[in-house]
Amino acid sequence: METVGIALLGVGTVGSAVVETVLRKGAEIGQREGITLEVRWGLARRVERVLAAGLPERAATTSIEPILEDPLVSVVVEAMGGEEPAATYMKRALEAGKHVVTANKEALSKHFAELVATARARNRALLFEASVGAGIPLMASLRQILTVNRIERIRGIVNGTTNFILTMMAEEGMAYHDALREAQRLGYAEPDPTADVEGYDAAYKLSILASLAAGTHIPPDRVDRRGITSVTPDQILDARARGGAVKLIAEAVARNGGWELRVQPVFVPGSDLLAHVRRNLNAIELTCDRVGSIVLYGPGAGPAPTAAALVADVLDAVRFGAALLPKLKGAS
Amino acid sequence: METVGIALLGVGTVGSAVVETVLRKGAEIGQREGITLEVRWGLARRVERVLAAGLPERAATTSIEPILEDPLVSVVVEAMGGEEPAATYMKRALEAGKHVVTANKEALSKHFAELVATARARNRALLFEASVGAGIPLMASLRQILTVNRIERIRGIVNGTTNFILTMMAEEGMAYHDALREAQRLGYAEPDPTADVEGYDAAYKLSILASLAAGTHIPPDRVDRRGITSVTPDQILDARARGGAVKLIAEAVARNGGWELRVQPVFVPGSDLLAHVRRNLNAIELTCDRVGSIVLYGPGAGPAPTAAALVADVLDAVRFGAALLPKLKGAS
Repeated sequence: METVGIALLGVGTVGSAVVETVLRKGAEIGQREGITLEVRWGLARRVERVLAAGLPERAATTSIEPILEDPLVSVVVEAMGGEEPAATYMKRALEAGKHVVTANKEALSKHFAELVATARARNRALLFEASVGAGIPLMASLRQILTVNRIERIRGIVNGTTNFILTMMAEEGMAYHDALREAQRLGYAEPDPTADVEGYDAAYKLSILASLAAGTHIPPDRVDRRGITSVTPDQILDARARGGAVKLIAEAVARNGGWELRVQPVFVPGSDLLAHVRRNLNAIELTCDRVGSIVLYGPGAGPAPTAAALVADVLDAVRFGAALLPKLKGAS
Repeated sequence: METVGIALLGVGTVGSAVVETVLRKGAEIGQREGITLEVRWGLARRVERVLAAGLPERAATTSIEPILEDPLVSVVVEAMGGEEPAATYMKRALEAGKHVVTANKEALSKHFAELVATARARNRALLFEASVGAGIPLMASLRQILTVNRIERIRGIVNGTTNFILTMMAEEGMAYHDALREAQRLGYAEPDPTADVEGYDAAYKLSILASLAAGTHIPPDRVDRRGITSVTPDQILDARARGGAVKLIAEAVARNGGWELRVQPVFVPGSDLLAHVRRNLNAIELTCDRVGSIVLYGPGAGPAPTAAALVADVLDAVRFGAALLPKLKGAS
C-alpha cells in the first residue's frame, strides 16, 4: 500500500472537513485504490485550529517551510482562501515538486496562467474541482467535454449566497437586508458579505470556467461585474408575476474570436431551468458545438462537498499527475 | 505526432458521425494532444455504408478478423448496437490487446462484469461515456464523484423517446399513438419502438449506472420494468392540472446492503426539476453521501453528441488506458 502524504494549508471549516473526510473515507479508499492518505501537516496561524481538527501537535505549523522540505509530502491541499499568501504558497509548493489541489477561486483565477505554467514546468498536477461549484463535477465534465467540443457559452448561477438572498426576497417577500441577515444567520453569508453580494466571487468562478473553455487565461478583472445590492423587491415581485425570477447570472460568450464575460442580476423566464434553481444551489449551463447544451446542478458550497472534491483531486493528482493539466494557448 | 488507429464496428448514423467528428476535429485534437486519429476500418454488412461515411474502400470489412489482426489498430469503437455480435466482438478486441470504446448500452449492461474483467486482465481501456446520456458527461462525473462519495440513489429520465412522447401528450394533448408517430417522423423513435416504450432502453442504462454506483454488476434483468404504453391521456392531464408531469423514471436505490432498480411511469411534482425536463432531453439525479444531490441535464441521444463522447473516450483510452476502469467488487 502506497502512502500519500498531504499538507493542508488552512485549517478552517473546509480544511477541517478535509481531515474528517480522510478519516471517514480513508479505509474505503485504501481498499479500492491501494493508497493510504496521511495528513502530515496543517498550516494555521493558531495551533488550536490544527488540534481541533483532530491532527496531532507535531502536524501544526505556522510556516510553509517544513512542508516544502518534507519529502513525504506529495500533495499540498490549499484551503486557506484569499489571494495571498495562497497564490505564492501554491507556486512554491509546485516548485518544490508537490502536486497542488485547491478550492481557492480568487488566487486561482488571478494567477491561473502562472500556476498552470509552473505545474507544467515541474510536471506536477494542479487540480481545482472544488474551486467552482464545490462537489458538482464541473472540472471533470469540462475536461471530458473539451476533449472534442468547443464551448460557445457558459451561463449559470455560481454563487449560492446571492441566490439564497434572491430566493428569500422572491418567496418570502423579504427586503434585501433582511434576506442578507437570514443568510448570515444560516452561515451562507460572511459577516462582510461584499465578495458575494457585489459579484466578486461569481466573477472569480466565471474567470476559471471561461479560461478553461477559451484555453487561455481570462483574469477576473475582464468580467463586467454588477452585484445584487441594488435589486429592488419590486423588480423581484414583477419577475415572479411574469412566471420567472431575478437571478445573478454569470455568463461568458465566445464572440468574434474573443470572450465577453459578465456577472449581473437579470430576469430569467420560467421556461429556463435556471429560474427554478432555489436557495443556495448552483447550476451551470455549457453550450457546446457537438453535444449541445448541458446543465450541471447541485450544492455549490459547504464544507462536506468542498472537502469531497479536494480529496478526490488528491487521488487524481497521485494517479494522473500533470496529465490532467489544462492545455493553454498562451496569454489572453 | 503519435498516430492512433481506430476501427469502427458499425457504420450507421452514429458510426458515420464518428468519422465526421474525426474529420472535423482531427486537426484541433492533433495540435492540442499531439495525437493523429486515423479510422482504418469500418465494419458493416454493406460496403456502401462505409463509402457513404467517407472512408476509402480498403477500410471496408464485413469481418472482425482483419481488425483484430491489424497491429496499427489500437482502439476499437463499437457503434453497432444490440447484444450480439457486439458483446463477442468487444471481448475479442480486448483479448487482442485493443482498447474498446462503446455506445452500446444493451451489450454493456448484459456483459458488464465480463467485459470489465477482460479489460483488466489485458490491461486495456473499456470506456462507455456514450452509452448513457450520449454527450452528457455522466461517466466522467460518476468517476469523479465515486472517488470519495457513496451514491445512495440514482434517479432520472434516461430515455429521450418516451420523454418526447409524454411531453407531446401533456403539452399538445396528443393520444399515445399520435405522439409515437410524431416521434417516429422526427427520427426520435424506431419503426419498432418496443425497446424505448417498454422501458428496456432505460433499464439497460439504469443497470450501467447502478453497476458503477454499487461497484458490482447489476444486470438489466434485475430491473423492475414497466413502459409507457398504458399511460392514459387522463393520467397525464391530471398530472398537469396538479402542476407536475408523468415521467418515465429510472430509479436505483441502495437499501439494506443491496440495490433496488425500477423503471416506471410516475407522477413527478412541479417542485422537482425532473418535471421540467421536456421533449427528448435527459436528466439524471445522483444522491451522494458527501456532496448531496447533483443533477446532470442535456440531450441524451443523437449522432453528434454520441460521436463526440465516443471520440473523447478514444483519446482517454490512449492517454489513460486501464487506469479509468471501474473497480468492481465481484458478482452481485
